[in-house]
Amino acid sequence: MNDLILGIDIGGTKIKLGIVTPGGGVVEDSKIDTVASDGPAEAAGRIEGWYRKLGPDCQGIRAVGVGCAGLVDGKKGVLRYSPNLPGWTGADLGSIFRERFGLPVTVANDANCAAWAEYRSGSGAGSGCFVCLTLGTGVGGGIVIDGRLYTGSGGFAGEIGHQVIMADGPECSCGNRGCLESLVGTGAIMERYARAEGRSGRPAPLDPSLGVKEISRAAGSGDRSAAEVLMETGRILGIGLANIANILNPELIAVGGGVSGAGEIILGPARETMNGHIMGDGISSVRVVAAELGNKASFLGAALLTSEK
Amino acid sequence: MNDLILGIDIGGTKIKLGIVTPGGGVVEDSKIDTVASDGPAEAAGRIEGWYRKLGPDCQGIRAVGVGCAGLVDGKKGVLRYSPNLPGWTGADLGSIFRERFGLPVTVANDANCAAWAEYRSGSGAGSGCFVCLTLGTGVGGGIVIDGRLYTGSGGFAGEIGHQVIMADGPECSCGNRGCLESLVGTGAIMERYARAEGRSGRPAPLDPSLGVKEISRAAGSGDRSAAEVLMETGRILGIGLANIANILNPELIAVGGGVSGAGEIILGPARETMNGHIMGDGISSVRVVAAELGNKASFLGAALLTSEK
Repeated sequence: MNDLILGIDIGGTKIKLGIVTPGGGVVEDSKIDTVASDGPAEAAGRIEGWYRKLGPDCQGIRAVGVGCAGLVDGKKGVLRYSPNLPGWTGADLGSIFRERFGLPVTVANDANCAAWAEYRSGSGAGSGCFVCLTLGTGVGGGIVIDGRLYTGSGGFAGEIGHQVIMADGPECSCGNRGCLESLVGTGAIMERYARAEGRSGRPAPLDPSLGVKEISRAAGSGDRSAAEVLMETGRILGIGLANIANILNPELIAVGGGVSGAGEIILGPARETMNGHIMGDGISSVRVVAAELGNKASFLGAALLTSEK
Repeated sequence: MNDLILGIDIGGTKIKLGIVTPGGGVVEDSKIDTVASDGPAEAAGRIEGWYRKLGPDCQGIRAVGVGCAGLVDGKKGVLRYSPNLPGWTGADLGSIFRERFGLPVTVANDANCAAWAEYRSGSGAGSGCFVCLTLGTGVGGGIVIDGRLYTGSGGFAGEIGHQVIMADGPECSCGNRGCLESLVGTGAIMERYARAEGRSGRPAPLDPSLGVKEISRAAGSGDRSAAEVLMETGRILGIGLANIANILNPELIAVGGGVSGAGEIILGPARETMNGHIMGDGISSVRVVAAELGNKASFLGAALLTSEK
């Protein structure tokens, strides 16, 4: 038995895994397919398989931390709702991993975990009130207040991507309209780009399925409609950030996730729009930075949450 | 010297005053004009004048609590920004009242004060995470987490009325567009009613200046367009409540302020829309109730905040 913890980040298509030190170091990490249709017990089996094959330095973990997409009841360790993991709703992830590893298990929302990792050993270190957004296909969030992950009365707080900022806007994965996710998630960006290309009358130089990374690259190489699509995404993001600023008045907001890889071309316009929307003519200000831990944030945060229990 | 506290609620047109017991009882209360143009020192003089004329039972207060419309830096006791009190921005309310009364003074945002009063001795008593909205000409809010008023890193949290829910919506008092306040504040309701009357082709039965109370009364007497205006207001309010629910997952949201006097004809549709917008198909739920303390909430909360210092 040593001090290491197994951190697990379960997403709709991939599971990210890491062996984590109490200080937030990553000894070993990997990525496997989720294969959601096979169910959580089968996934847990493959996760254990990966772990058993690691070298002796990684054996003897003392706990398991699980971050999972969806609404998680952290007290019971149960996944209550997860549109990205069909058939997993109601899964008792705490019991599944406890039985498999014979160790203490903590279960939390994946974006909450990412926020906790950024707070403990990334962009948010030392902030009194810290909010972390995860921008990708889904848009998640986590809130840290006075050094504690804030999860709300039922454990479901931080669903920042599902704030409506454009009533009657585009349809969202959650079934509503005009949520932040429906406007700045990967799907919205790709659609915006396809529309922009259509308008310009030029032949589309990119296959939309290549994703946001490709659009960023194109913007960097002087493609003006790609740049405009990202800046427009940033401006819309800025409205969502301003709402967070007006409601929570955090010290710092970090933006992570795949979309944030585009960097300042999104964050710059986001900051500008946010500042224009915060109450008080510049009296109240909130710093907005890029998250630092990349796609390791969620498994790291899951492990760190466990280690502090 | 006894245990009483002078609670003061400074709004754009009226100042509400009360002598408050530590348990939240009101021994005496009144309302005077703000006369914002004469400045805060003059207003403090008139407040002292009112206090000095009270009977011997009310004398010997031990502290003063001030709630004020606008962005308040509670640590310094300074009003940092207040569109409704022209010329007061930067006013050191803490010093002004401390010098006048020679007593400890606490200064906070008025809607934050109302939330604290509702939490301590009204609708929110006992809630783990509680949000209180104040609906009137302005739309304010306050957040109580784990028994403490949450004010954010700069003291400016709770500006729930200035969350954008309809980007490119109507212009708001804050200069932005589509804030909740611009859609459910008194002005928006009156305008909605005037439009509805215009559409119906009937002569308008009401002077819009008579306000929301009159519309409520008309709705109660069977005026269908009045009822529809209030229900539509409720539906829009519900989107704002859902955003709060998704971000903060509170146990309870209380709705107070003049507009909330319309009661269930607004709150019913608000709950229904909110429930349709909360993530998780009914797994996550938030109770929405009417606030209980009416227009005494802010001076009461200001006094109670002081008494707990």
